[in-house]
Amino acid sequence: MRAAAADAERQSLTTPTDAVPDLTEIRLAVDTVLAEFLAAKRRSARPPLQELIDTLDGFISIGGKRIRPVMCVCGWRAAGGEGTPEQVVRAAASLELFHTFALIHDDVMDDSGTRRGHPTVHRSLTHRHRSQGRPGNADRFGVNAAVLLGDLTLAWSDELLHTSGLTFGQLRAALPVVDAMRNEVMYGQYLDLLGTGRPAGDVAHALEVNRFKTAKYTVERPLHLGSALAGCDSSVTDACTAYALPVGEAFQLRDDLLGAFGDPAATGKPAADDFREGKYTVLMALAVAQATPSQLRLLHALVGRSDLTGEEADAVRAVLEATGARLAVEGMIARRCRRALAALDRAPFPEAATVPLRQLAHAASARTS
Amino acid sequence: MRAAAADAERQSLTTPTDAVPDLTEIRLAVDTVLAEFLAAKRRSARPPLQELIDTLDGFISIGGKRIRPVMCVCGWRAAGGEGTPEQVVRAAASLELFHTFALIHDDVMDDSGTRRGHPTVHRSLTHRHRSQGRPGNADRFGVNAAVLLGDLTLAWSDELLHTSGLTFGQLRAALPVVDAMRNEVMYGQYLDLLGTGRPAGDVAHALEVNRFKTAKYTVERPLHLGSALAGCDSSVTDACTAYALPVGEAFQLRDDLLGAFGDPAATGKPAADDFREGKYTVLMALAVAQATPSQLRLLHALVGRSDLTGEEADAVRAVLEATGARLAVEGMIARRCRRALAALDRAPFPEAATVPLRQLAHAASARTS
Repeated sequence: MRAAAADAERQSLTTPTDAVPDLTEIRLAVDTVLAEFLAAKRRSARPPLQELIDTLDGFISIGGKRIRPVMCVCGWRAAGGEGTPEQVVRAAASLELFHTFALIHDDVMDDSGTRRGHPTVHRSLTHRHRSQGRPGNADRFGVNAAVLLGDLTLAWSDELLHTSGLTFGQLRAALPVVDAMRNEVMYGQYLDLLGTGRPAGDVAHALEVNRFKTAKYTVERPLHLGSALAGCDSSVTDACTAYALPVGEAFQLRDDLLGAFGDPAATGKPAADDFREGKYTVLMALAVAQATPSQLRLLHALVGRSDLTGEEADAVRAVLEATGARLAVEGMIARRCRRALAALDRAPFPEAATVPLRQLAHAASARTS
Repeated sequence: MRAAAADAERQSLTTPTDAVPDLTEIRLAVDTVLAEFLAAKRRSARPPLQELIDTLDGFISIGGKRIRPVMCVCGWRAAGGEGTPEQVVRAAASLELFHTFALIHDDVMDDSGTRRGHPTVHRSLTHRHRSQGRPGNADRFGVNAAVLLGDLTLAWSDELLHTSGLTFGQLRAALPVVDAMRNEVMYGQYLDLLGTGRPAGDVAHALEVNRFKTAKYTVERPLHLGSALAGCDSSVTDACTAYALPVGEAFQLRDDLLGAFGDPAATGKPAADDFREGKYTVLMALAVAQATPSQLRLLHALVGRSDLTGEEADAVRAVLEATGARLAVEGMIARRCRRALAALDRAPFPEAATVPLRQLAHAASARTS
């Protein structure tokens, strides 16, 4: 059903037109590419690997906003690309496979149990191993198989890009963008790893993690990839950056607020997981920087504790409120949203790009899941 | 020093000639490419990432046979490629970066402490974290940072290939080979993971792991990559396969024997680690298949035990001897070596390829480290 519906969508998307692209249509087209890619992999795989592919397919199917592929298609339109050609959708979908790899490994590193309201990949693999009564340590198997499945997904994100049907010029323009994106997100991930475990008041450090782990990776580079495929000049690239960094930062700041105050039923992640992991967010850094000595003692005693209770989580939330950190982050989000919209007003993009990008800026700042 | 010496070597290697390439010269040229690539990465990296790059550089520098890059250059020569051009050396070196990624993750999965006679990457990172008195769990940091460094190394193996200076035709021929190689080695790795933990007598399964995890990955695909860069036809590809699979299988069978009976001072790995991990080798599968009931009880009781003593390891070795498994594996190696040499006699390769490939077949079968 999903594939058939998206097939119809793609037909309309591939019609060359300057009409404003519908974001839902782009998401459907990306999902079709991913479903077909994995179905082909499954057909050619030997049986033992098929269950691993099924796990991956299941994880991709249950959710995700497809924000990076959508940004990539917007970048294509921003640089004057017409319609939504199949090869651009495929290149865009390769970003979603890359992101899937990043999530699988991230969940292993944090030992997160839940993502998108379902068990994380390593937990599913552990569960399958145990329920089939296989020999060996099931937890260890789940982690190892998830590391391996992440590696495979990273390799497949390349393969999907290589086989997108790009011209040599497009491939030559795309590869350095993808390489830069990978370097940046892994740097951000490492910074995050270095900071995790103890709350600290270094707001600049937390903003640097935010910028590399999210803003550049989620918004800037996907826009650059799409615009590179359309053969853009540097004025387009710069305008993409001017929009992308504030939107991407706002997106992550909203994520931090949702992690602390959001509804688990909407976010798909357990409440207070960020507190338990001791995640180094701008929100937490602001609270630490503004805390009174007794508030600081409370944060140091509770943040990073894997056995944090619901009441203790409420006590952390009260400090985030009382220090003004929550309000300050709301202000940062609003300022960044305004800055991104102003950048769009100045950008040399056609309407086919500015309309959805404006919509995405609002959604990134105001989302609830 | 290393860079300067290899610079001189590279000069001579890039002279177009059909002379038989010296394997040591190829290794030096590959090492220079790797050292220069990492030095450039280090220069452009922000400080926190530099220590991660230093760890990677240290791990690559302490050893390794560079067998995959050497095979790649031999493949280039086999298909009539002349000399050893810089872009071929760079593409060959990208295989070594890929292999480095695979080793880093493999050691995390097996929780191995020693590789090439030194601490494994995750153990080094744990040690550094602890010795600098950083907050948080040092073991967990080491594992997470190693997973991330492996991911980065995989991404960089791509980047090195992309920036090798290949023509579009070469890149278009190379990418499917690299994609196939990754799919195959990860399939072999997953098979290995499924089989680990308990000795079983399924020799066919163990041979399948051997073929995918080693033979295709270490010999066949590197040869295919080099010959694809020279624009080979299918007769060359097929001749590469006819040589590669027996040599690669012999290489892994020798590795299995070294893991069981080798001198730790020469192999760089602790004695009996394969027994402790419960590694699913052809050697072990043959022993299980031929064991008497009491020998089988002994193998089931000891293989896969992380606390195996030296005496218990000797008892396992005695079963590998008494069942005839050790002798049978020696016979398999000898037959595969003969088959590979016979394939070379029939191959349409110039001397510049057959001479080093003959040498490599002998070395793979007879090596002690």
